[in-house]
Amino acid sequence: MREFKITSTCEPEFQAQVQDKIDNLTKPKGALGRLESLAAQICMIQHTLSPELKNPYNILFAADHGVLAQGVSVSPKEVTWQQSYHFLEGGAGISFLCRQHGFRLMVVDAGIDHDMDYSSGIINMKVRKGTRDFSIEAAMTQQELELAIERGAQCVDMAQKDGCNVISFGEMGCGNTSASSIWMSLLAGIPLDKCIGAGAGLDKGGVSHKYEVLKHSIEIFPGTHTTLEIMARYGGYEMVMAVGAMLRAAELRMVILVDGFIMSACMLAASKLCPEVLDYAVFGHQGDESGHKLLLESMNAKPLLHLDLRLGEGSGAVCAYPIVQSAVNMINEMDSFRKASVTKYF
Amino acid sequence: MREFKITSTCEPEFQAQVQDKIDNLTKPKGALGRLESLAAQICMIQHTLSPELKNPYNILFAADHGVLAQGVSVSPKEVTWQQSYHFLEGGAGISFLCRQHGFRLMVVDAGIDHDMDYSSGIINMKVRKGTRDFSIEAAMTQQELELAIERGAQCVDMAQKDGCNVISFGEMGCGNTSASSIWMSLLAGIPLDKCIGAGAGLDKGGVSHKYEVLKHSIEIFPGTHTTLEIMARYGGYEMVMAVGAMLRAAELRMVILVDGFIMSACMLAASKLCPEVLDYAVFGHQGDESGHKLLLESMNAKPLLHLDLRLGEGSGAVCAYPIVQSAVNMINEMDSFRKASVTKYF
Repeated sequence: MREFKITSTCEPEFQAQVQDKIDNLTKPKGALGRLESLAAQICMIQHTLSPELKNPYNILFAADHGVLAQGVSVSPKEVTWQQSYHFLEGGAGISFLCRQHGFRLMVVDAGIDHDMDYSSGIINMKVRKGTRDFSIEAAMTQQELELAIERGAQCVDMAQKDGCNVISFGEMGCGNTSASSIWMSLLAGIPLDKCIGAGAGLDKGGVSHKYEVLKHSIEIFPGTHTTLEIMARYGGYEMVMAVGAMLRAAELRMVILVDGFIMSACMLAASKLCPEVLDYAVFGHQGDESGHKLLLESMNAKPLLHLDLRLGEGSGAVCAYPIVQSAVNMINEMDSFRKASVTKYF
Repeated sequence: MREFKITSTCEPEFQAQVQDKIDNLTKPKGALGRLESLAAQICMIQHTLSPELKNPYNILFAADHGVLAQGVSVSPKEVTWQQSYHFLEGGAGISFLCRQHGFRLMVVDAGIDHDMDYSSGIINMKVRKGTRDFSIEAAMTQQELELAIERGAQCVDMAQKDGCNVISFGEMGCGNTSASSIWMSLLAGIPLDKCIGAGAGLDKGGVSHKYEVLKHSIEIFPGTHTTLEIMARYGGYEMVMAVGAMLRAAELRMVILVDGFIMSACMLAASKLCPEVLDYAVFGHQGDESGHKLLLESMNAKPLLHLDLRLGEGSGAVCAYPIVQSAVNMINEMDSFRKASVTKYF
């Protein structure tokens, strides 16, 4: 795999300066709660007391999953390609959120099982038309894995060349909560039954069937595995591409907005490859997909929002963006007690 | 007291139409979680399938509390008038949040114990220079109570004349968590010790002293009391004015954004006077002030944010506004499955 050089943002002396600035703003100490810790994190990422958020992007990776043939999702496969067009046409969930918060929306064909029309604006990074069915064989080859990681990084380079320094990742891929549940179970060491949920809307019987398929898919490939082996074995292409993108974004010292269950599983994989990536991660949302809470806890992640979203597409990350902006505005625009002639009251 | 004619927004037939529109947007059913329930609430308030949010206001009521003399707060009294000027100068917490989200900020002198310069833009609704010390006597007279309610309503009328249909209320008043704790305890029937927190930053000894002062202040006035009696007995003017403002906003069918602990106590009082006011309430934030969770639960309120804010000023409500906008954008801008040519997948 390509090597990513990610440096930790931890610099105790500079951190003390940041904290001092925050503690002297006209409010009781700590009274802006998460905005304060978030502002500090962004100052550390950008190594400045006056951070800026520029040209935010939401990169949405789309791909199909061979395991869908096993009936693990309510969504028929054609929804992946249909929705991928729909995102750019403007009427999807992520579309209005990107408009509302000034995000460029980049839709990437990571491995959609359909002949796509790229004049639509969808970016062609297709590795293959969908992964193989991991209940039978490995989802992708080692070569495909490396290609997907590389292409994910390329997408981030494109955003960075457009002046972007804060980036969100989303996904579309019917069946991808299945792959995410397995990644979570194997990478975080959490029993599979605690990692499985209803996806886009399975009923109880559906969830139980999904569990049996995934359990079988783990059993046919016994032994311990490296993070890269797990990623290749279970896919999908959109998820591996997101991991490559996250690692590249951290290498470029961008603020990374992490979406829901699937993107959290990708961040977990990225952090197993390079732990420092977590310094750059802002977790946007904890959804109601079962297991997401445990997944976040395995990374000590404290999400900004709890709105019961389970749409994917980057929606939870983009929805949380105004809070990230508030944190930056706080440190740039609030007066110190001295400047404001207000008695320091703590 | 002036009578407020607040009608419930509940209309089952229309509600079914709203839900049908939401369920046909291009997402799995329920996948946008709280955005969906919020959109439904706003549709019901405005009685339309295409709601609009116009000219948001944050009205910040400021006043002083006589009980501050008993050492119940870390904040010296002059902070109330100093910060009131500071809000409009642009460098305070609420200032940047209002700028960020396009709120008009109206700062109202409800009862500041200082000769204010109203050429600063602060609106003069002063009832009196601070309430009386409720550990000794009633905070305000019945006449002052009625005047404060009336003036709160007047402030909302001003905003409405400026085209506002979504309104947040904030407060500044050193010592006002004390009054709020007593309101909460007496109005919701929750033991006082569960209603008390550190306010702007009391230590453990400070909290314990505050408890003794408040306990004494309840004991010297035994028996059951009406909501209005409790409001007058413990004040403050900014809180009573906020109650009047909330009731008037609901009467005008505005969306009401509820801030943290103090404004939640005011909404509780408003709901005891007119239960229908809760149909119009969107709870912005649950802070870390002890008891806020219980207070919200007593109203079945589910706040949008949990960011450990404890600033007041309306900050938690204004901070949550983009989520309210997202809910409205969702229902106005997302395509139906039919329009988007996407297979309905649930």
